[in-house]
Amino acid sequence: MSVSHPASRKIYLTGSRPDLRVPMREVCLHGGEPPLRLYDTGGPWTDPDAHPDIKMGLAPLRLPWIVGRGDVEELPGPTSLYRRQRDDDPSLGGVRFASVRRPLRAKPGRCVTQMHYARKGEITPEMEFIALREGMDASFVRDEVARGRAIIPSNVNHPETEPMIIGRKFLVKINANIGIHETREWILRNSPVPIGTVPIYQALEKVGGKAEDLTWDLYRDTLIEQAEQGVDYFTIHAGVLLRYVPLTAKRVTGIVSRGGSIMAKWCLAHHQESFLYTHFREICEIMAAYDVAFSLGDGLRPGCTADANDEAQFAELDTLGELTKIAWEHEVQVMIEGPGHVPMHQIKENMDRQLEVCHEAPFYTLGPLTTDIAPGYDHITSAIGAAMIGWFGTAMLCYVTPKEHLGLPNRTDVKDGVIAYKIAAHAADLAKGHPGARAWDDALSKARFEFRWEDQFNLSLDPETAREFHDETLPAEGAKIAHFCSMCGPKFCSMKITQEVREYAAQQGVAAETVALAQGLREKAEEFRKTGGEIYRPA
Amino acid sequence: MSVSHPASRKIYLTGSRPDLRVPMREVCLHGGEPPLRLYDTGGPWTDPDAHPDIKMGLAPLRLPWIVGRGDVEELPGPTSLYRRQRDDDPSLGGVRFASVRRPLRAKPGRCVTQMHYARKGEITPEMEFIALREGMDASFVRDEVARGRAIIPSNVNHPETEPMIIGRKFLVKINANIGIHETREWILRNSPVPIGTVPIYQALEKVGGKAEDLTWDLYRDTLIEQAEQGVDYFTIHAGVLLRYVPLTAKRVTGIVSRGGSIMAKWCLAHHQESFLYTHFREICEIMAAYDVAFSLGDGLRPGCTADANDEAQFAELDTLGELTKIAWEHEVQVMIEGPGHVPMHQIKENMDRQLEVCHEAPFYTLGPLTTDIAPGYDHITSAIGAAMIGWFGTAMLCYVTPKEHLGLPNRTDVKDGVIAYKIAAHAADLAKGHPGARAWDDALSKARFEFRWEDQFNLSLDPETAREFHDETLPAEGAKIAHFCSMCGPKFCSMKITQEVREYAAQQGVAAETVALAQGLREKAEEFRKTGGEIYRPA
Repeated sequence: MSVSHPASRKIYLTGSRPDLRVPMREVCLHGGEPPLRLYDTGGPWTDPDAHPDIKMGLAPLRLPWIVGRGDVEELPGPTSLYRRQRDDDPSLGGVRFASVRRPLRAKPGRCVTQMHYARKGEITPEMEFIALREGMDASFVRDEVARGRAIIPSNVNHPETEPMIIGRKFLVKINANIGIHETREWILRNSPVPIGTVPIYQALEKVGGKAEDLTWDLYRDTLIEQAEQGVDYFTIHAGVLLRYVPLTAKRVTGIVSRGGSIMAKWCLAHHQESFLYTHFREICEIMAAYDVAFSLGDGLRPGCTADANDEAQFAELDTLGELTKIAWEHEVQVMIEGPGHVPMHQIKENMDRQLEVCHEAPFYTLGPLTTDIAPGYDHITSAIGAAMIGWFGTAMLCYVTPKEHLGLPNRTDVKDGVIAYKIAAHAADLAKGHPGARAWDDALSKARFEFRWEDQFNLSLDPETAREFHDETLPAEGAKIAHFCSMCGPKFCSMKITQEVREYAAQQGVAAETVALAQGLREKAEEFRKTGGEIYRPA
Repeated sequence: MSVSHPASRKIYLTGSRPDLRVPMREVCLHGGEPPLRLYDTGGPWTDPDAHPDIKMGLAPLRLPWIVGRGDVEELPGPTSLYRRQRDDDPSLGGVRFASVRRPLRAKPGRCVTQMHYARKGEITPEMEFIALREGMDASFVRDEVARGRAIIPSNVNHPETEPMIIGRKFLVKINANIGIHETREWILRNSPVPIGTVPIYQALEKVGGKAEDLTWDLYRDTLIEQAEQGVDYFTIHAGVLLRYVPLTAKRVTGIVSRGGSIMAKWCLAHHQESFLYTHFREICEIMAAYDVAFSLGDGLRPGCTADANDEAQFAELDTLGELTKIAWEHEVQVMIEGPGHVPMHQIKENMDRQLEVCHEAPFYTLGPLTTDIAPGYDHITSAIGAAMIGWFGTAMLCYVTPKEHLGLPNRTDVKDGVIAYKIAAHAADLAKGHPGARAWDDALSKARFEFRWEDQFNLSLDPETAREFHDETLPAEGAKIAHFCSMCGPKFCSMKITQEVREYAAQQGVAAETVALAQGLREKAEEFRKTGGEIYRPA
């Protein structure tokens, strides 16, 4: 049994080597139905045979693959000055993650990115893992990564990850934002999924919140600190150029990206292009040495539907496209961040333009919210836009919680946001025709039609809620085998009536209504009326 | 002040006659902003000057208009046999609505539908009311109704309604399903919005739930009973033909419309076309005599994404198109019901086909749900599809609650469903470019950018929830004038930083960053750094 889902068990598909084990969640069904296998991100936390200890962190399952390539070296300790100072600070002993491995880094002159391997024609274990996970061919995975159309966020210092891919030919992924601070190390060591950060936030903390005091040296140290911790992708707002800032002057909501506003302030205060832009190649070199992927931030994204698809947004997007090419020269993986707030009729333009000017690098959008009028429900306003842009080609959807614009999300808000985005991502997979996506819908619908209530609950995205909602009106165990529910009751259940119609046709010795009808049903209709005095048999 | 919304007051726009008063909700704003006027469906229930009494019902505001046309007559009492029997049943005295008006009906040979008046070139008070309500020209309203592209559900026996229009050139409307039974009269007498029913459900009750025992006479009596009560539109599944039933045999979930399955069962049992189809012209005559609009039911709509846009669905749609023409011959208003469950990539085809084969009669869809995997969250899976199909041209969206497929919705579920659908409808209005739709978004976004927290709450779709979510982290009154919220805090608030950047530019004696930049900001940048040592001023 899986730890997290009822009637589910964790299984592993083994690849070409014994340590390449791809987890899946298998939902057990009734009525002779085969179990359904689903993509599973729970890692060891949902494996009853694993016993992860948060103080020890997860097993570094990719470590043999990383070390085996022979292109990394173990450093004597953290490179970052800031990190070394903190390590020496006795007051932090209580909150520090204890069992820290020494950081890995590319050997001088080597590039350790998945893009580099892909371009050389190599199929890494990470790529094979992904191919099994997505039901794709491993060489296809490699080709998409080589082309820059997909990324595998996989810092050499985050060997705990189960490899996943972000690209529009694959399942749409979702991202959840949670507050991280001193906790980053704890999270990385215990996370089986890739972790992204926005290093400028930490850099800003280091200068007491004064954007204009930020320096390249400080930022650089922050990048290296986090790269050596194992962060898999960095949001970097390198596309906010000095000349774009005035383009936001007439907007209804100006600049709404935190990173974007910080960099705009810096640019104006110094009257020069930001160090993110002027030092972009140096940043690439750092990223390449650890295989940190770029998430090129959209610092000028629209903060309301009125500002969508404006000159500021598209000017920055052009620059992100240019930066993508530079990153690819360094064989660094890139995805592009997108909006934000966009009314439905402008979503497609946003996606098409990103594909064009960013050379098909994966798009990673925040929603978009399709209207501004519903604070408190922005998981819904944005799930609409997220599903659509996912269908159009966005590879990863950054979730929005109901608390967006209002306050800090709590556990319930995070869950509500994640569910809304799992819905959006799956609806997109279905619309894109991703192989395998439909199997889930069909399995659930079939269970519904056959009144396999337990299967319907167990197959649903949130089994507990589905069961609770059903049991609110019909709590008896017997109701879970009933051929109706409380919505319509036994007399009005259309599915029950349909089944009776089919049964009737079958009883009459005909395969289906089709044939029955072709033979002329008038006579049979008479019989039906005679025998069917009470067609609703007692449950 | 409005009864239902904070900082709102009910106002009325008066038309060409003093009894033509169109309600609006006006939200009062701060910061010198003009109040925002919103479409208001609350009726007397949200007017503090009205004192509606549920036992008396609402004032019959349309009665002078209806009677004034001189084409209706007052009947001595209800025509329906069933109704008269119930009226004579002393055991129902306690639950019966007491103050019943005598029913109105068209004088012999007269047609009293809004379509009839529109085709004659008349602008009725109902049309003028709608024009004011939607910010449109009254002759445009008339032309759309004459053409059949829009309907005004307005039974002569439901004079309590505030006229509204359903058509794709107007605001997208939403429909909520609630259980009605003996309560129908109470609801009609107290409802300022149009009410629709599915008469076959009541007819089925009358024959003890045995579909095959339904007869035309029984159904006819039910139609008249409800028409004389004042029901504004009837869902009638007249497109379920005998030959279409076999087309559902291979479906994953067969027939999922209750009305559809009832009629399918009747057709098979009798081996003949349903009385809804064979007596369609007589039905039209009844509808025309009271101005009840058709909601032509989609009895063969898909019940899962696998069954979307299949032969059964489209065959029935063709028949609904033929029936539309017949109804229009009788000058009866028509809308067409649509699915159901449709993956995103098949939604547009559904809409385009409906427009084509149903001659642009308004479409009225249930969702559609864009995936089947999330029972418990189908208000979200379907809000995605509803927003999209609304944008594509659907005129009214039938809501789905979180309990769909699982159980009977309670008050909270109904609210959650309504909010999700108000979001979908407004997102569609915005995408369609409906004049006036954007004003709401822009007013809220401007309030957000200017940290007018009270205005942001008051302008939101659900002010109470927005305020609660904000106050969960920052309950102090002072936080409602703060230039940040708990999400990012004062240091990271992008909107605050943007405003500082703009203020800075203004202080330097330049109109906006645009000009400032053109003049060369290097020198000013120096000053900024000198003066801006602490740019986050104490709140």
